[in-house]
Amino acid sequence: MSGFASSSLARAALSRLFEPSDTVGLGLVSLVGPVDALRVARREIGTGHELTRHLCEALGVGERPNLLEEGLARWAPRLGDLAPERDLATLARLGGRLVVPESEEWPEALDDLQVSAPLCLWVRGRHQVPGIERLAALVGSRDSTTYGSSVTTDLASGLTARGFTVVSGGAYGIDAQAHRAALATTDDRDAPATIALLASGVDRYYPAGNEELLRAIAERGLLISEVPPGSSPTRWRFLQRNRLIAALSAVTVVVEARWRSGALNTAHHAGELGRPVGAVPGSVQSANSAGCHRLLRDGTAVCVTDAADVAELARPLGGESGDSARDEASPARDHDGLTIPDLLLLDGLPVRASTSVDKLSSVAGLSTKDVIGGLARLELAGLAQRSADGWRRQKG
Amino acid sequence: MSGFASSSLARAALSRLFEPSDTVGLGLVSLVGPVDALRVARREIGTGHELTRHLCEALGVGERPNLLEEGLARWAPRLGDLAPERDLATLARLGGRLVVPESEEWPEALDDLQVSAPLCLWVRGRHQVPGIERLAALVGSRDSTTYGSSVTTDLASGLTARGFTVVSGGAYGIDAQAHRAALATTDDRDAPATIALLASGVDRYYPAGNEELLRAIAERGLLISEVPPGSSPTRWRFLQRNRLIAALSAVTVVVEARWRSGALNTAHHAGELGRPVGAVPGSVQSANSAGCHRLLRDGTAVCVTDAADVAELARPLGGESGDSARDEASPARDHDGLTIPDLLLLDGLPVRASTSVDKLSSVAGLSTKDVIGGLARLELAGLAQRSADGWRRQKG
Repeated sequence: MSGFASSSLARAALSRLFEPSDTVGLGLVSLVGPVDALRVARREIGTGHELTRHLCEALGVGERPNLLEEGLARWAPRLGDLAPERDLATLARLGGRLVVPESEEWPEALDDLQVSAPLCLWVRGRHQVPGIERLAALVGSRDSTTYGSSVTTDLASGLTARGFTVVSGGAYGIDAQAHRAALATTDDRDAPATIALLASGVDRYYPAGNEELLRAIAERGLLISEVPPGSSPTRWRFLQRNRLIAALSAVTVVVEARWRSGALNTAHHAGELGRPVGAVPGSVQSANSAGCHRLLRDGTAVCVTDAADVAELARPLGGESGDSARDEASPARDHDGLTIPDLLLLDGLPVRASTSVDKLSSVAGLSTKDVIGGLARLELAGLAQRSADGWRRQKG
Repeated sequence: MSGFASSSLARAALSRLFEPSDTVGLGLVSLVGPVDALRVARREIGTGHELTRHLCEALGVGERPNLLEEGLARWAPRLGDLAPERDLATLARLGGRLVVPESEEWPEALDDLQVSAPLCLWVRGRHQVPGIERLAALVGSRDSTTYGSSVTTDLASGLTARGFTVVSGGAYGIDAQAHRAALATTDDRDAPATIALLASGVDRYYPAGNEELLRAIAERGLLISEVPPGSSPTRWRFLQRNRLIAALSAVTVVVEARWRSGALNTAHHAGELGRPVGAVPGSVQSANSAGCHRLLRDGTAVCVTDAADVAELARPLGGESGDSARDEASPARDHDGLTIPDLLLLDGLPVRASTSVDKLSSVAGLSTKDVIGGLARLELAGLAQRSADGWRRQKG
């Protein structure tokens, strides 16, 4: 094994050594750079009190004299497994590339994760990772209902139609449905059809039942992981993967989630990053929406009902407004825009018989003058009709 | 017609003269009292610039020299209809009573409406009006779905079981269902079974299809209106009736509402009064929930899914928490409460075969020391099992 002289190669190696969000390891990289961090991990450079002190300072954890030694003990058992050239060759064979913070393609949005920003991304697929403003995450439970699948389909296709790329995990249920709908509605374009963030290496198809889907994503979209090829998905890696979904995306939407669900973890990551979070409401009698309602109730998420709502959340300063579109779609009512006295008058006008100004005065509680003026306005608006024996409502 | 000397009698008369929320009339009453206000309306007292000036000041409307004269012109056509003794006799025959601000029973919560507080309440039923802390409003569309009816039933029965009295309108749909469920689940108790606020007089059964229901409410609950017996329901009175529902109740919940719906008007009244507002989520594919989602999205309402949520909203400082109850109901998971290293270790433990400490070190990314300590903790927690050839996961 050569010296991992290049920064990229060192990051590839360290991504096997460190679990995601190993803050001691990541703090070390931010202090001394990946090449020297790897040399420290391999005990080619002594650690010393000074380095530990700097590290504690950088991490803001107070004095922890054993912090670095504990890290070294944690990393030691994996030193023998390091083979970053082999991992990179595997990735290249799969049509992938390593994206590191020094790459032009590096998603700057990940830097918002600060000390827990990933070391690198193992990316599989032809397209570049789009900028955050074009990425919308759709997440949810593995055991989705037909309602959840249907809403996911509508959201994913509506978002791709608006130029967004969908981001999700690789699980059954909402994740898979989001990718399927995105793949189905995206023609070949200058952006990935959809993006799956994996808790395993990008060469692993997990769960097995999604292999075909994940292969399609590798072909037309992107598979992304922070752990190297061959890595298994573990609970920890799933939880940490969620932070990448949240950090990459301009908005994170939970479509369906139980009271306890990994999707809520993604939502909370997004909330902590100050990213907008949406939740799709559903039946209060469906356990699969209980997590969404929890997010709505505690204020973590905003209620979203369609792709326009999601797009609006993603572009808080943008022009597109779901409301105005909906108001246009909603038919105007005959009394829209009437003053209160004229509304009272309209209410007082009989539909079948005719009535007099005096009677209208009493019924509507208006002066004679207001009744006469109001009737003229209602007549002009096509709402009142004058006849030989008085006034009546004009039928719409 | 005698002089309406008593304050109660004058309020009864004025409630026929003024439309609900006629702020000029109500401002006049607050300035000179109901007896003199009626004399002004009947032109038994001159108005003069001074009174108009005071009135403009009290209403904060700037200088409006014709304000009072306009009111007088509005009220004049109805002066001939005044017969408050007859109205009170009608009410008494129906087993009702007039509740005025001077009554001990007057709901102080109505004073939050300030200048648009009602002149009086025409109340029909045996029970006293409960204090605001016991009143929860359930409102919604006339064209409710089976989902809306079912949720309304659950909420109404859950709220009465918690000692609340349901408040609603008298319409078909959600209103009617709320009353029915409350009547069905309330045994005779020292509180009205349910309360209907009407836009018409309490002697009118509107809509006709609800006559039987409204009679049952008059018998076991309360029918309340601010307009005297014989008054017809008009659009204006419906809209103003909504403010009474909102003002009377500790919380207002919209169960189902279209994008445009009178129930939203009630919710906005409650919001303006600083009362908590709840909205029940539903399918994003149901037009009957679009209004609820609108309230959730714009922040007017909080998401409520059951009676516990509503009770919590009604008692913002109270002890009862829906969350804790739900957390108890939710089964604990085997990894709840584990530290991150122990969670990593648990993830690394095979279920079917056994493994060694060294292998676990590498798989979990932990030092040998941490693996040994962690295995001891997992063994104690019944999660890991030691065998002749190493360690494995203990099956739940």
